Parts: sequence; C-alpha cells; structure tokens
Amino acid sequence: MEPLILQSDFGYADGAVCAMYGVAQGVCPELRVFDLTHDIPQYDIWEASYRLIQTVSYWPENSVFVSVVDPGVGSTRRSIAVKTAEGHYIITPDNGTLTHIKRMCGIEEARVIDESVNRLAGSGESYTFHGRDIYAYTGARLASGVITFEQVGPQVPVGSVIELPVIEAKCEEDVITGTIDVLDVRFGSLWTNIPREMFAKLGVKHGGRVEVSIANDTRTLYKNIMAYAKSFADVNVGEPLLYVNSLDCVAVAINQGSFSKAYNIGTGIKWRIALRKAPRIVYE
Amino acid sequence: MEPLILQSDFGYADGAVCAMYGVAQGVCPELRVFDLTHDIPQYDIWEASYRLIQTVSYWPENSVFVSVVDPGVGSTRRSIAVKTAEGHYIITPDNGTLTHIKRMCGIEEARVIDESVNRLAGSGESYTFHGRDIYAYTGARLASGVITFEQVGPQVPVGSVIELPVIEAKCEEDVITGTIDVLDVRFGSLWTNIPREMFAKLGVKHGGRVEVSIANDTRTLYKNIMAYAKSFADVNVGEPLLYVNSLDCVAVAINQGSFSKAYNIGTGIKWRIALRKAPRIVYE
Amino acid sequence: MEPLILQSDFGYADGAVCAMYGVAQGVCPELRVFDLTHDIPQYDIWEASYRLIQTVSYWPENSVFVSVVDPGVGSTRRSIAVKTAEGHYIITPDNGTLTHIKRMCGIEEARVIDESVNRLAGSGESYTFHGRDIYAYTGARLASGVITFEQVGPQVPVGSVIELPVIEAKCEEDVITGTIDVLDVRFGSLWTNIPREMFAKLGVKHGGRVEVSIANDTRTLYKNIMAYAKSFADVNVGEPLLYVNSLDCVAVAINQGSFSKAYNIGTGIKWRIALRKAPRIVYE
Repeated sequence: MEPLILQSDFGYADGAVCAMYGVAQGVCPELRVFDLTHDIPQYDIWEASYRLIQTVSYWPENSVFVSVVDPGVGSTRRSIAVKTAEGHYIITPDNGTLTHIKRMCGIEEARVIDESVNRLAGSGESYTFHGRDIYAYTGARLASGVITFEQVGPQVPVGSVIELPVIEAKCEEDVITGTIDVLDVRFGSLWTNIPREMFAKLGVKHGGRVEVSIANDTRTLYKNIMAYAKSFADVNVGEPLLYVNSLDCVAVAINQGSFSKAYNIGTGIKWRIALRKAPRIVYE
Repeated sequence: MEPLILQSDFGYADGAVCAMYGVAQGVCPELRVFDLTHDIPQYDIWEASYRLIQTVSYWPENSVFVSVVDPGVGSTRRSIAVKTAEGHYIITPDNGTLTHIKRMCGIEEARVIDESVNRLAGSGESYTFHGRDIYAYTGARLASGVITFEQVGPQVPVGSVIELPVIEAKCEEDVITGTIDVLDVRFGSLWTNIPREMFAKLGVKHGGRVEVSIANDTRTLYKNIMAYAKSFADVNVGEPLLYVNSLDCVAVAINQGSFSKAYNIGTGIKWRIALRKAPRIVYE
Repeated sequence: MEPLILQSDFGYADGAVCAMYGVAQGVCPELRVFDLTHDIPQYDIWEASYRLIQTVSYWPENSVFVSVVDPGVGSTRRSIAVKTAEGHYIITPDNGTLTHIKRMCGIEEARVIDESVNRLAGSGESYTFHGRDIYAYTGARLASGVITFEQVGPQVPVGSVIELPVIEAKCEEDVITGTIDVLDVRFGSLWTNIPREMFAKLGVKHGGRVEVSIANDTRTLYKNIMAYAKSFADVNVGEPLLYVNSLDCVAVAINQGSFSKAYNIGTGIKWRIALRKAPRIVYE
C-alpha cells in the first residue's frame, strides 16, 4: 500500500476533486490519498510539470502521483504511467506534464494506460472527466497493489514521452543565463533554472553582490545589483536578494515583498535572466 | 469504520474546518476524514445540494457526508440525517440541502438528530457553530460506529425533508427546455438539468449541431448554433460546444474559455436554456 | 502515533505544503497528517497565533501542531517546541506565534529544536524552507514516536517564549473595552478578546440591547445599538447582532452580511471595541 498524491487544475470549489477521492476510496478504503495542489492555472502544463519536480523527491519511493492538467481530454493524446529514476510513479496525460521529471530526474520506464481494463466501471458515456474515470482510478489501483505497474498497459519507449521546449541554463565566460521557470506564488519570488553548482562558478560568496538583469522577448524589465544572501533575513525588509531556493536553484526575491508584482515579471522560456558577479560596493 | 466527508461554506482560511476535523479525531483517531469542498458560496444551499448529487455516488456505500451550509443556525430548522437509496448517509440542517439527492437519487429513511445525546460535551453555551458541535460530532460517531443510524434520533417522514423549488427539464415537440443548475467553477461551463437521455430525443449525433438559447427573467442573453461534441478536443480553441458532462447531463462550454464569463450567465431556476436540433451546415 | 496538524502562510497553489506532507510520510507512512490552514496572510504572526488558540483544544491530547509563519527564516530566531497546559505539542519559530496559547491556555514546557539532529538529511544547503526541512520533519518524528519531546532539544524557560504585545479586555464600571482580535474571514464577523464571563457583568440577557462602539487610533468608525442574540437567526437578515462566538468570546456581525466590509474595520491591538448596556427600546 503506497500513498497516492493528486494534482490538477480543477480547483477546490466544486466536487471534481472529491469525486476522484471517492473513486480512490472505492478501489481501496485503506488507501492514503493526498493533494499536491489543485490550483494549477487552467491548462498550464508547464506549471504542472514544475510542481512535480518540486515535490516528488520528498515522497517515499513507490509513491504514486496522478497529475491531470488535460486540455486535450477526449483527443488522441495518450494516457501514460511512468516510473522515475528515483522510484516514484506518475500517471498523467502525455502532454508535456513530465518535461521536468524526464530531464532533471529521469524516467526509467513508460507505459500507456490500457483503458479497456483501467477505467471506472460505468463511466464509458462520459468523455470529459478522465481525471476521475481513468487517472484517479488507475492511480488508486496501482498504489493499493490491485494492479502492478506492468498491468497498467503496454510499455512504450521513454523517448516517446512528450516534452515541452526548454532552454537550458548556461555559463559563458563570466555571465550565466537562464529562464524564469516558475513563481513562488504566495511570496512573489522568481525561481530560475540555474542550478546552485553553475552559479558557484561566478565565485560569489554569501554577502557578495550580483548584477541581475531580466528580459522578455521585447525588452529588459529589470537590471540591478543585489546581494547573494543565505536567506531573506540577511537583507532589509523591502530589499531584493538572490538566494538558493528549496529546489537548489537560484531565485530572486524582495524580502517581504513581491518581486514578480513589483516589476511585472512572468514565467516561461520567454523570460530570460542573466547573472554576473558585481564588484562589492564598500562604503568607507 | 466508514469514511466521513465534510462540506461547508466556511472556507479554508480560518480554523473552522480544522476544529471539525479535531472533533472527529477526538471521536475516533482511526477515522478517515475527507473534504467535499468548503468553498460553497456563503449561504448557498442550492449549490451545496448540487455538489452532493455530483459526488456522493462515487463514494463507497455507507460513507457518511456532513454538509453545513446553515443560514438558519440557531433557528428552529431541524438537524437531520438521511440514508439515501444508494446507501450513503448525509447529515445536514434540513433547509433544502437535500433537494437534489431526494429528487434524483432518493431518500430511504430520515431521522432528526437528538441533540440531547449527539452534541459535543461542553459546547452548550455556543449557539453558532453547530457544524463542529453537532454535525461533525454526530457524523464522526456514525462513521466510526459509536452510534447506529437509529441512534442518531427519531425517524421522521421522508416527505417532510425540505426541498428548494425546482423546475424540471422537459421535451415538447422538437424543443427541450431546462435550467442552468450550476457552474463548473474553474472552467466556466454551464451545467444544465437536461439528462442525456432526454437530449437524445432530438436525434443529434456527435458532430451534429444544436441551436442553444439562454434567457433569464428579463431577456435572452445568448442564441447561437454550436456543435454537439464528445469532448472539448473535438472543437477549436475558443469555439463553443454542447457536451454530456460528468453527471450525465447536457452542458455548454467554450473550449479553453469561460462561457459564463463571456455572456454573464448565472445559475438557478431563473436561468432557462432551450435546445433545438439545427440543420447541419455543409460548406461545399 | 498521534495526529500531526500543519499551519502556514504558504497557500495551496504551489508544492510547498505537499513537500511537507512528503517529508512527514517519509518519517512514518502511517502518520495521519492534517491541515489547520495554509492561508494565513503572509508573515501575519498574530493571525497564526489566533488560529492555534481557536483550534488546538478541539484536538485529542498529544496531538502535534506545526505552525510556520516565519518572516525571520534564516535569522537567529529560535525554533521551539512547546507542550501546552492541555497536553498538546506545538512546533514553530519562536516569533510570537505562541502568544495566545501562552496567555490563554498556558505552556508547560518549552524546548529549542536541536537542528544538528532534527533536520532532514541532505537539506543543509537550503536556508529558506525550514517548514519542510526542520518543522515538518521534527513534528512528524515527534507525532510518530521516533523521538520523545525531550529529544527535540534542550529545555528553555517558558518565560523566554516570545509574545506579541496584547491589550487585555477590561471591565470598568458599566463599560467593557477590548480589541478586535481577528475576522471570521468568510462571514465578515469581528471576534473580540472579551470573554463571555466578563460580558455577563453587564447584565444583558439574550434579546437585550448593547451599545457598541468601535474605534482605531484615529477615529470612531462605528457606534450603534444592537441586540445580544443567541444566534444569527434571532435577528433579521441584514441586522447587526452581538453574540458569543465559538471561542466563547463576544463577537459582532451582520446577519448574512459582512460587518468588517460594511464599516472597513480591521484587526489588531489598534482596533478597540467598547460595550455598554443599552436601555431596551419598547415600541408600544
């Protein structure tokens, strides 16, 4: 019996999530079911992908994740289940939701869900709620041991799992460039795709200063020098800072403010960030 | 030991729901407690009723639901527990919350809660939080087997369970009329009270076209022809569609848009929808 | 095995809460984890403190609470665990989050978390998510019995636990003064710090009338006479009322309206309320 963790863009206001829980309880009353989040912005596959990489590794091996952000429900997009390199299972429409997991963690094995077996009885006339009828149902069966991973359906090549376009962070001479991958929604911080190890090449120590510039396709929206801080408490309230986030990547924030709101900065591969070591300013 | 599922209009921002969970855990630590939703709009008994019919049947038999949307807390409105025709239990103020369950699923037996027995010890001086002191407490006792359904309190006639006014969908000649019952909150779809079987009488096949008009008491807000689609993916992004929703009723949506926002359409018995088979337009 | 209850200002939209759950499940798969709320306004230590006093006593003895509203993460603020006089455990940054618990319930014993032992393995390079790496981890270990309360870390004096400034309610002659402590978020009621026992000194019976005035530092925002009602149903829709809330303190509301929105009233020690018995108005 493994935990089942659900993610979707359904929100909490209507009965959709509850119906998924009910189906899972119907498969196995002892199953422990949890939420990743159901507040993924509608149809935002990229954010669904990011929230998975942000959380999956904190769960025990063999945990089963179900992620349903599915603008193509009812189309020919495949329904798949994968086993990650770290030993977790993820069940999802094959629409790019596994982009970050595939690139950053790795997929060991992928299978297409055989819907002739893995579909809630009596749900054949509804074509709009695969989250309940196929994904939650199959996830609950896998997590509770009713079926094995092999019984989910036939194996497919890992390479066939769909990925969204990604631009890798890179370090050229003394400048690192990356993208703004996602917001820390509540606190307005920008999380980049620049790993701590790459940033270390700039040779900036805690307390040192970094020149940060942020641009999108049309213009530069921010260019300033800020401190590389261990944590928010190292700078004044209202002061910007660069820090290593809980995913071990570089992030930019305003202490107790919202960086994204302050400068109208968005997320995705169009949003580029560049970092350069700045001279330390010493007031004497 | 059966699952306990809670619904209310309390929201998640303060401690109200957590206090209900605590009371339930105090009754029985092994009890599994879940949420339907706590985001029912304040005092909206109609929506509470709808969310129950939307979800209850997906839960195992004997599951216990507690629904607390209770504008009359402290008045003489009764507190009741019912057993549905499908074998679920629902505990709620008797204020219309069971309207859809009574009409569409059926109530087998109804009992008034005997508050002299089924009330959290020491809660006698607070008259405003029956959700915690009576409903969650009684629900937890029933779900965990501390009391039987009979011990909830004395039986009352099923006919006495209060219903909100409802207008039935009907099919006259080649026109079906119904009401807009509820929104799919996150995706802006309109869910009607027109069952798939009734719609089938129009003889429209998947891919065929339907004339849809929507009116409230004062005027017609929408009149257009749209496709009857198996799922959203059958139409273009931004295109309207008519489909069968996850409750097996007819719904109207815009693919990846919000139909309710686009035309300012609300819900309730004042919001009427009429469907008629449209000639198929063939471009040659 | 005791229940673990989490509170934070992280919101539900990203993966932060889910990562905490994952860490807890990694400590012990059988652990039952619940939410108090994660919608505490960002950095609002006062509200976090209030939500604890609002809910903790409804949970079984030995339940373990983790509260993470932590504007000083990464600073020298202490991480503590306390045992309350009622036998619950609370783990939190020592920043005032325990203000109400310390004053109204009492703290029996306080300990500083020994982070050399009680920290998630491999989390040493991240300084911004103690909620996951220290608090949820330590809370899960305590709740599941992996460590005892003594093993959390060295004992510190209860008197050293930080408190936010509080102004006590007081009764002078025929006037009671207090503060607006918190909002019932969803229903717009104002919850004061005036206990029912103190209010009883005014000698107002249910149905009697009270003169209520509300002021902040700069002006009086409300002065009116309203009924002391057993519950909302005792007054008309839209009518104000004074009642005893679910915490056994005096509260002010508008039946099916929002008192806080109607008069732009906020919370905190700057928001004062005064109550005086009003003559009963009899229309003859």
